[in-house]
Amino acid sequence: MTKSAESGSYVEPGEFKRDTNYITTRITADGRDGYPVEPGRYRLIAARACPWANRTLIVRRLLGLEDVLSLGLCGPTHDKLSWTFDLDPGGVDPVLGVPRLRDAYLARFPDYPRGITVPAVVDVPTGQVVTNDYPQLTLDFSTEWTEFHRPGAPQLYPEALRAEIDEVNQAVFRDVNNGVYRCGFAGSQDAYEAAYDRLFARLDWLSERLATQRYLVGDTITEADVRLFTTLARFDPVYHGHFKCNRSKLSELPVLWAYARDLYQTPGFGDTTDFAQIKEHYYVVHRDINPTGIVPKGPDLANWLTPHGREALGGSPFGDGTPPPPPPLAERVPALHQPD
Amino acid sequence: MTKSAESGSYVEPGEFKRDTNYITTRITADGRDGYPVEPGRYRLIAARACPWANRTLIVRRLLGLEDVLSLGLCGPTHDKLSWTFDLDPGGVDPVLGVPRLRDAYLARFPDYPRGITVPAVVDVPTGQVVTNDYPQLTLDFSTEWTEFHRPGAPQLYPEALRAEIDEVNQAVFRDVNNGVYRCGFAGSQDAYEAAYDRLFARLDWLSERLATQRYLVGDTITEADVRLFTTLARFDPVYHGHFKCNRSKLSELPVLWAYARDLYQTPGFGDTTDFAQIKEHYYVVHRDINPTGIVPKGPDLANWLTPHGREALGGSPFGDGTPPPPPPLAERVPALHQPD
Repeated sequence: MTKSAESGSYVEPGEFKRDTNYITTRITADGRDGYPVEPGRYRLIAARACPWANRTLIVRRLLGLEDVLSLGLCGPTHDKLSWTFDLDPGGVDPVLGVPRLRDAYLARFPDYPRGITVPAVVDVPTGQVVTNDYPQLTLDFSTEWTEFHRPGAPQLYPEALRAEIDEVNQAVFRDVNNGVYRCGFAGSQDAYEAAYDRLFARLDWLSERLATQRYLVGDTITEADVRLFTTLARFDPVYHGHFKCNRSKLSELPVLWAYARDLYQTPGFGDTTDFAQIKEHYYVVHRDINPTGIVPKGPDLANWLTPHGREALGGSPFGDGTPPPPPPLAERVPALHQPD
Repeated sequence: MTKSAESGSYVEPGEFKRDTNYITTRITADGRDGYPVEPGRYRLIAARACPWANRTLIVRRLLGLEDVLSLGLCGPTHDKLSWTFDLDPGGVDPVLGVPRLRDAYLARFPDYPRGITVPAVVDVPTGQVVTNDYPQLTLDFSTEWTEFHRPGAPQLYPEALRAEIDEVNQAVFRDVNNGVYRCGFAGSQDAYEAAYDRLFARLDWLSERLATQRYLVGDTITEADVRLFTTLARFDPVYHGHFKCNRSKLSELPVLWAYARDLYQTPGFGDTTDFAQIKEHYYVVHRDINPTGIVPKGPDLANWLTPHGREALGGSPFGDGTPPPPPPLAERVPALHQPD
């Protein structure tokens, strides 16, 4: 998602409220919305910077959908109107042939009134956006695209655990994923402090839950871990300073920090996380809270590669499945340097 | 000092340059500038928020000058023109009878063109500012006010160590005391990164120096420790986030963190440090880098009270002298809560 800040509004007294009205068209196995699952037909548009888009990059990789769902990547910054394909030669997406993600939105809805957000899925033959409904998107990757999952793909949203995953996701969204934005974009001291208290209370709750189990729900990686991870990865580089989520750094919360490193070191997570793009996005785009646009040089991030010791808790990242192979060369992110 | 940011300017390419032109009149034992040391004649005007003023509060207390040099305290925030006595009943300093420090500056220099800064010393009979030359001020407390030092007052600027103290102070001022401002008020990414690199290189140098000796120069507290301390005390609550000095927190640098806690727990240091006023000052006053004026709720600061283990390095805080007694009731700062 994002234009993060820009797709929200303020309600009294100063609380940031995210616009959660998305394009809810779904791509399904039975094609009931007019968009059947089909290899090669759709293009996922993401930005590595964005936590909501990062989810789709992780799930696509874990499930092995790279060959059936191509990927277009917007650069870390965007202008007032749209995310742009400024990383591509000529500033144009090589498949869609457009410079801005907005073009795909307008191709379907000429008067589209809301924010132009990533992730979005575009129907390549028509160049029209199909959906930007990110909470549904990753669930549909798991449940509607099953025919095209790689051999050994994990069950990220298994039937038996859905109620529990949904419940965890709801609390994590409200207090953590969106909670950090409610801290950073609070319009009053009181609204900020309320969001801060909820955020850290929830992080304490998560620390307690994860002290004795390796993953959030069940004993393998699920959708719940994917959703928590993309916020944790941005915590110390961005949210701690930029959004004033500063009771402590993630690296000062032993359980959550080990949990985050465990995931980071698991194929699909760290290899879709680009810290440089993440920092550039927030600090450059949000001029309303960082007027200079200067990007902090810290913190040192090599510690993401240190041993986490979480194997001792049991569990198995992919259950009966297997890790994904390394990402295609064209989709690799810069590696962190090993710590001294 | 401060109007911190406001008393600086920018030079190419984007580097923050502090205005270091102060009123250099001195109060001396021999009265050669027309202002002889005299008990009860002068009033020190400070603000607990300000690191440069905090130095004078520490030295005045260590030397026991409270009874001969009275203290007026401005609130943590100030307006465009001046620090103000907004903490006092009626918003007026009870001795000087004025609402703004600026009034004392204008009483002496009706067209005073530069920033109205703390610390300043005012001649009470005339209501005129004598000096705001903070680097000289604390040295003069040590060397010109000796007649009025308390019994057991430490030697903060002993003859034999002056060359070394001056050398350390110069490096610490450039790279650390003022270095954090050069990070925070940098006008370009390059200027910021250059200041950041110098700051952390100097902190590494200080860590190495302090790994084997308890204090910066010699084996007792000196002026050099006072000057480093007031910046370290503001590091995690303010400079880490607000000024983007974020390679790490102070609390992640083991030697410097233990050194800072050692001083904090020494009479004169922690009991002149008001973290709430410090945070409010920077985050509310600097709207150019924090437009919302929202003050972060973190970090948790109770860890300043944890054991530091520095006694093992030898040395003695006050040499042949003694610690100062507790501060007068009227000058006490809110205590930190003991950690859990």
